[in-house]
Amino acid sequence: MADDKKLTTRAADFSAWYNEVVLRAELADYSPVRGCMVIRPRGYGIWERMQRQLDTMFKDTGHENAYFPIFIPESFLQKEAEHVEGFAPELAVVTHAGGKKLEEPLVVRPTSETIIYAMYAKWVQSYRDLPVLINQWANVVRWEMRTRLFLRTTEFLWQEGHTAHATLDEVEEETRRMLGVYRDFMETYMAMPVVTGLKSNAEKFAGAVRTYACEAMMQDNKGLQAGTSHNLGQNFSKAFDFKFQTEAGGTEFAWNTSWGVSTRLVGGLVMTHGDDKGLQVPPLLAPIEIVIVPIWRSDEERSRVLEAAERVRKSLHAWERRAPGKLRVHLDSREGMKPGAKYYEWELRGIPIRMELGPREIEKNQAVLVRRDTGVKVTVTLDSVAEDCADMLHQIQDAMLVTARERREKNSHRGGMDYKRFREIMEGEGGFVYAGWCGSAECEAAIKDETKATIRVLPDEEFRSAKTPETCLKCSGKAEFEALWAKAY
Amino acid sequence: MADDKKLTTRAADFSAWYNEVVLRAELADYSPVRGCMVIRPRGYGIWERMQRQLDTMFKDTGHENAYFPIFIPESFLQKEAEHVEGFAPELAVVTHAGGKKLEEPLVVRPTSETIIYAMYAKWVQSYRDLPVLINQWANVVRWEMRTRLFLRTTEFLWQEGHTAHATLDEVEEETRRMLGVYRDFMETYMAMPVVTGLKSNAEKFAGAVRTYACEAMMQDNKGLQAGTSHNLGQNFSKAFDFKFQTEAGGTEFAWNTSWGVSTRLVGGLVMTHGDDKGLQVPPLLAPIEIVIVPIWRSDEERSRVLEAAERVRKSLHAWERRAPGKLRVHLDSREGMKPGAKYYEWELRGIPIRMELGPREIEKNQAVLVRRDTGVKVTVTLDSVAEDCADMLHQIQDAMLVTARERREKNSHRGGMDYKRFREIMEGEGGFVYAGWCGSAECEAAIKDETKATIRVLPDEEFRSAKTPETCLKCSGKAEFEALWAKAY
Repeated sequence: MADDKKLTTRAADFSAWYNEVVLRAELADYSPVRGCMVIRPRGYGIWERMQRQLDTMFKDTGHENAYFPIFIPESFLQKEAEHVEGFAPELAVVTHAGGKKLEEPLVVRPTSETIIYAMYAKWVQSYRDLPVLINQWANVVRWEMRTRLFLRTTEFLWQEGHTAHATLDEVEEETRRMLGVYRDFMETYMAMPVVTGLKSNAEKFAGAVRTYACEAMMQDNKGLQAGTSHNLGQNFSKAFDFKFQTEAGGTEFAWNTSWGVSTRLVGGLVMTHGDDKGLQVPPLLAPIEIVIVPIWRSDEERSRVLEAAERVRKSLHAWERRAPGKLRVHLDSREGMKPGAKYYEWELRGIPIRMELGPREIEKNQAVLVRRDTGVKVTVTLDSVAEDCADMLHQIQDAMLVTARERREKNSHRGGMDYKRFREIMEGEGGFVYAGWCGSAECEAAIKDETKATIRVLPDEEFRSAKTPETCLKCSGKAEFEALWAKAY
Repeated sequence: MADDKKLTTRAADFSAWYNEVVLRAELADYSPVRGCMVIRPRGYGIWERMQRQLDTMFKDTGHENAYFPIFIPESFLQKEAEHVEGFAPELAVVTHAGGKKLEEPLVVRPTSETIIYAMYAKWVQSYRDLPVLINQWANVVRWEMRTRLFLRTTEFLWQEGHTAHATLDEVEEETRRMLGVYRDFMETYMAMPVVTGLKSNAEKFAGAVRTYACEAMMQDNKGLQAGTSHNLGQNFSKAFDFKFQTEAGGTEFAWNTSWGVSTRLVGGLVMTHGDDKGLQVPPLLAPIEIVIVPIWRSDEERSRVLEAAERVRKSLHAWERRAPGKLRVHLDSREGMKPGAKYYEWELRGIPIRMELGPREIEKNQAVLVRRDTGVKVTVTLDSVAEDCADMLHQIQDAMLVTARERREKNSHRGGMDYKRFREIMEGEGGFVYAGWCGSAECEAAIKDETKATIRVLPDEEFRSAKTPETCLKCSGKAEFEALWAKAY
């Protein structure tokens, strides 16, 4: 794919647009291993900033990091019946090692509940050892049939929190707390609004009692499950005989939670903010926030402009921004490339601010700042350019969330929904539909069969409609819940 | 193993001492998977600080992070003859996935040269695309027969840098640069002095042209290879047809380097600094630098002391230390545990400073600081306790390096070495022996057979003896090199 070929537009083919943006912005590439991707530096730089921020938020809520083996004995997975049923079809299995056939095959972790709770059972004796609040940053493998860069890959990077507590109340509280951390991260840092809520039984994690999720809407109106937080009850502690002495002197099985987000978030970021020019990275997650493009037409101008541009770069970098640290600025001094070609490339890569600096600007002690999100240009004085950039970055971050939220609301449907209208929406432009559900697995399955839409969440109170739906979308029986329906990734 | 049982001493059984320290300081634990360990939060906290610092140093030298797949097609490894020969016996192989037998087995990466250079071959067309300066933080698997916590585990965490350059000069420069970064990190942050130099052909990385290494001496006088940096020449670029257009218009194979350090460093830290009381963590890598142990004898004293201790903790935490960031302080307010038991535990865990705070100290507006490395106690006023702690941490960091360097020099032997004396040393107390080597693989192999000692490095100039050895330790032929010999992990 030549770099000068125009991007497919979102309207023409959203899926082709997505792949082109990911590849041409050099976020990731296909690898020679089926379904596995390579995360290139521009993509990894975004993931790294996500990691740093989430890690800080996990530590602020009392969690520590640890690391557990990538291999899990096959027999461990079989100890929790629902868990093995859910994951068995997706396992990659090591049968040989060190030149020999293994006595017991080892599974490459698809998730680590089993090995982690087996260790906790060894470490925890008494209520005094609780809670255990551990997170792990790791790679996991799920053998998927259809893969998409970032969204669904055979191997992906993620974090998985695994906690153990003395009471049911505490696990429910922890499960909700981490859902809140995810939501805060997604909205504040990714500028990606989400609906939070409970998963239906059909959609919950294999082995969980309750699964909560953050659901975002992509620009093709499909839902993306962006993070999940599971109340595991005592399911795994019973499977792994993870007991503790209570304060009262008895013994009880421990209560567990697990929660995770993955490199899928990078895909969510692309599909939330990208446009027909390419990627848009929210400033807080952008490895480069400002790119300086110097403009010259002669050799004489070239050295003068480059010298001034380097001075500006240094002054921006040296400026003390209170938070979130130094301005991240790059000077694109490549030769043999026209400014227009540079603009095009940096727009494709989604850098929030472009600074244009030519002989005329320098003479007037000015620079032109161009916002990636709106395309608006402003001329500023070089005396206060760092402050102006920092302000503009704030504005962009805020505006991106507002834009994404407005788009989501525009494509959300509430009230007056019958099944005919619902099918029209799902066959047409798609979107989020809030509608009544009787609570039966049959209605849920029939809707999925007929429309491919699934219950994304049973939304938390603040997202529910002012007027509670009274009847089930499918059977017209009494609605037990308001459900958020959508087609999803 | 009960926590109140005394540690085995280093003199009695160094190997048992090491395992006990790692387990009882809760750095790591054995896992149910043969040869794989669990890195517990106290161990991971040290690794995490190592990572942060190394990552900063890699970025300061122009490198970016990326991520490549954990699976490598078996055929890729076979493309570089020496490489596959070196790694074949240690491979873990996925033969089944998604419920089916794979057409081509996938190897779990033991190192990533093959898959990475295959990708670079795709990304790089011209000299303008060079250099490529990429690092990866990842897990790797090598099926080892004998494993030791941190030192040699089937799965371990590491970073692997992989760079591509246009000229031989540049790769040699990069190889040496990263060796220097490692040395700087090990000495400045780990307080672990190292000898740098070139590996012999027998000991170099499978597929490298030249391997440089940092070699440290543990307290049992054995060597530990702590980091390696490889000049790969064009070996891998030829195997993977990784060519580029030169500035002159021709085509040439690219030149590559790779370099890595791993969680083995945590083991090196334990064996460099630990004593018969347990672990000692250099302040710059300590997740907790200062532990406050409040002392009380009655309930009345308890609340008064705890209140004061919490005030001190807050004031230490809030104090603005210029570098390396906030003081990392923990208040141990556990009840039902005597101060002495707490001292014992925190000494075992290697916290650099213990602050004792009782009613008498509080009354006098004082605190007692106890250095973990020397055991020296000083009484300081609470008015300047943060500055005093920061100063003491500096002193401890410096002293730990000095102590380790003195120990190494005391156990290094130079000059007047004949083979009889060499064998006595290797059969006895061990240590580093600097001696002449004719350069023949036969002498090297014979020495290894007879004494288990190997050439750790051909030391860089600054480490060589003032008087160059003239004859080979083994054959008494003309010495071509001065070699550093030792038994090693």
